[in-house]
Amino acid sequence: MINIQFSASETAWATYQDTIVAACAAHDLEIDLRQDHAAENVDYIIYAPTSDLQDFAPYTRCKAVLSLWAGVERIVGNSTLTMPLCRMVDPGLTAGMVEWVAGHVLRYHLDLDRSLQTQDLWAPKIPPLAQQRQVSILGLGALGTACATALAALGFSVTGWSRSAKHVEGITSQHGEAGLKSALQNAEILVLLLPDTGATQNILNADRLALLPQGARIINPGRGTLIDDAALLDSLNSGHIAHATLDVFRQEPLPQEHPYWAHPHVTVTPHIAAETRPITASDMLALNIARSESGQPLLHEVDRQLGY
Amino acid sequence: MINIQFSASETAWATYQDTIVAACAAHDLEIDLRQDHAAENVDYIIYAPTSDLQDFAPYTRCKAVLSLWAGVERIVGNSTLTMPLCRMVDPGLTAGMVEWVAGHVLRYHLDLDRSLQTQDLWAPKIPPLAQQRQVSILGLGALGTACATALAALGFSVTGWSRSAKHVEGITSQHGEAGLKSALQNAEILVLLLPDTGATQNILNADRLALLPQGARIINPGRGTLIDDAALLDSLNSGHIAHATLDVFRQEPLPQEHPYWAHPHVTVTPHIAAETRPITASDMLALNIARSESGQPLLHEVDRQLGY
Ligand SMILES: NC(=O)c1ccc[n+]([C@@H]2O[C@H](COP(=O)([O-])OP(=O)(O)OC[C@H]3O[C@@H](n4cnc5c(N)ncnc54)[C@H](OP(=O)(O)O)[C@@H]3O)[C@@H](O)[C@H]2O)c1
Ligand SMILES: NC(=O)c1ccc[n+]([C@@H]2O[C@H](COP(=O)([O-])OP(=O)(O)OC[C@H]3O[C@@H](n4cnc5c(N)ncnc54)[C@H](OP(=O)(O)O)[C@@H]3O)[C@@H](O)[C@H]2O)c1
Repeated sequence: MINIQFSASETAWATYQDTIVAACAAHDLEIDLRQDHAAENVDYIIYAPTSDLQDFAPYTRCKAVLSLWAGVERIVGNSTLTMPLCRMVDPGLTAGMVEWVAGHVLRYHLDLDRSLQTQDLWAPKIPPLAQQRQVSILGLGALGTACATALAALGFSVTGWSRSAKHVEGITSQHGEAGLKSALQNAEILVLLLPDTGATQNILNADRLALLPQGARIINPGRGTLIDDAALLDSLNSGHIAHATLDVFRQEPLPQEHPYWAHPHVTVTPHIAAETRPITASDMLALNIARSESGQPLLHEVDRQLGY
Repeated sequence: MINIQFSASETAWATYQDTIVAACAAHDLEIDLRQDHAAENVDYIIYAPTSDLQDFAPYTRCKAVLSLWAGVERIVGNSTLTMPLCRMVDPGLTAGMVEWVAGHVLRYHLDLDRSLQTQDLWAPKIPPLAQQRQVSILGLGALGTACATALAALGFSVTGWSRSAKHVEGITSQHGEAGLKSALQNAEILVLLLPDTGATQNILNADRLALLPQGARIINPGRGTLIDDAALLDSLNSGHIAHATLDVFRQEPLPQEHPYWAHPHVTVTPHIAAETRPITASDMLALNIARSESGQPLLHEVDRQLGY
C-alpha cells in the first residue's frame, strides 16, 4: 500500500480525489490517498502552495513531493523539503497554454482588437502573412517549446530562447546573454514562458524593453516577476511598447488600484492561460509514482540550484 | 511570344505587373503583358471583376482566362466566356485565410472579447480544451481543407462538409444533405468556406440555423450570399446564435444602414480575411500558363455547370 498525502486546497481535493485514484489504479498502484495521513507514514506528497503545509521535515520516509503546479517558485526554496521535488508537466495544461498563446499571438497579428471596435467603417487593411511576423518566446521548456512549435506550424517566424543551447525543429533557437539580445531585437510579439527564479526576476527591465522594436507587443503567461512593472508602464506610456497582455502578476488577484487595470494598452487576464486538467495531470502523477516504485528515475525533477 | 492581357483594376496592374513578368521569366516564358492588347492577339487573359471587360467573344485565340480572385461567381455565368476559366489558388491567400480563421476560432474558443473588456474584475474562467470544442467547416476546397487541418493541429474537433465525399486526415468529413445536418448539429463554431453558386445561396437559412446548437458562433469568410441575412439576424436577436463574425456581404462595402454594423453580437470585417499575395499568385499564374503551353492540363479549372 502506497500512502499518498494530498496537500492542496479543498477545491483541488474535490476535483482530484477520484481522478488520482482512477489514474493510480490504471497504473496498477495500490494507494491510500488522503489529506490527513500521519506524516511519518507518507510515501509521496501531492502538493500545491494553496495548502498549509510548510514543514516537510516530519515526512521522513517521503520519496518525492509532486507539485500540482507547473511553477514551483513558492516551494523550491523551502529548506525542509529535502526529498526530490517534481514540477507538473501535464499534456492538458500544455494544450491549454498553446491555445491561449496562439489565440493572443493571432489577436495581435491580425489586429483583432481593432476589428472588435465596430466603427461603421469599411477600411480594408490586410495584415502581413505570419511568415513575415517575428515572434520570440523566452523559455523553451515544456510550455515554450510547445507554443513555439504550434506558432511555427501556423507560419510564424519564431525565435526561442533558453538557458542551455537547444535545437527545436522549425524555429531559431538562441541562448545565453547574446542570444537574448537577438531574440529581443527582432520580436514584434514577445511571449514570456520562463519560470520565476533568481536569474529570471525582472529579466524584462528597462534596458531589455528598449531592445524590442518600436511597437512591439508583449504576452506574459509566465510569471509576474519576470517584468519590471514600472519599466513596462514607462514603455507603454512612451508608445515604444504598443500593447501588453498580462496573465500573471507579482500580487494576485491584481490589486484594484494597480495601473495595469485601467491602462488603455494593457489586457489583464486573471491567471487563466493554462490550468492543470484533472485527468491528464492525475495520469502524470500516477506515472511518476509508478516510475519511482519500479526504480526508474522521476520525470520533471526540479533542480534546486537552478530553481526550476 | 505569349500575349497576356491584364484586365483588372489600375491598382492591381501597379501591384502585379512586375511580379507577373518576373514569375513568367522564372518559368522560361517569353511574354508580352499589357492592359491593351488587341483582342485577336491575346493568348491568355488575367482577369478580375474590377475590370470593364464583359465581352470575351473578340478574344478568339485566347486559351484560358485566369482569375486573379479565388471566387469566380461574377464571371462564371458569362456566356461569351467560352474558353477555359481557372480560379486563383494561391498559397499566400490560403495562408492568410488559415491565419484569419484560426484567429477568429481561437477568439471565440477563448472568449477573447470578454478579456478585452477590462472590467477591473479578477474572475478566472478557464475554457475547455480545443479537443472538447466542435468546429464545423462548410466547404473542403483549397481554403476549407487548409483551415480544417490547421484547426485540427491546434487540437480542435473538426468536421468538414463538401459536395463530394472526401477524406481529410484528422477531421471528420461529411457530404451531402444528411452530412450537412450532422455537421451543423455539432457545430459550436461554424465556418463558411463555400463558393457562391446557385446551390449554395442562402444555404444558411432559418431551418439550418435552427439545427446549430444553442449559443453557436458563426464565422463567414466565404461569400455573403451563403447566409439568409434576415434569418441570421432573427437567430442573433433570439440568442440562439451567440455571435457572428462576417467578412463578406451581399453588398460591399456593407451599407452604413445595414443592421449588422450596429448589432452587439456581430463583428463586421471589410472583406480582409484573405487576399491574393502578388508573388505567390503570380507564380501560380505563370505555372498555369507554362502548363498550358507545354500541353499539360490547366490547374484549378472551373466547372461551369457547378459554378466553381
Ligand atoms: N499562466 C499560467 O496559467 C501558467 C500555467 C503553467 C505554467 N506557467 C509558467 O510557465 C513557466 C514555464 O513552464 P514550463 O513547464 O515550460 O517550465 P520548464 O519546462 O521548466 O521550462 C523553463 C524554460 O525556461 C528556461 N530558463 C529558465 N531559467 C532561465 C534563464 N535564467 N535564462 C534563460 N532561460 C531560462 C529553461 O531553459 P533550459 O531549457 O535551458 O533549462 C527552459 O527552457 C512555469 O515556470 C510557470 O511559471 C504559467
Ligand atoms: N473573404 C475572403 O477574403 C476570401 C478570399 C478568398 C476566397 N474566398 C471565398 O472562399 C471560397 C472557397 O474558396 P476555395 O478556394 O476553397 O474554393 P474551392 O477549392 O473551389 O472549394 C469549394 C468547396 O466548397 C464545396 N462545395 C461547393 N458547392 C457545394 C455544395 N453545393 N454543397 C456542398 N459543398 C459544396 C466544394 O465541394 P467539393 O470538394 O465536393 O467540390 C469544395 O469543397 C471562394 O469561392 C470564395 O468565395 C473568400
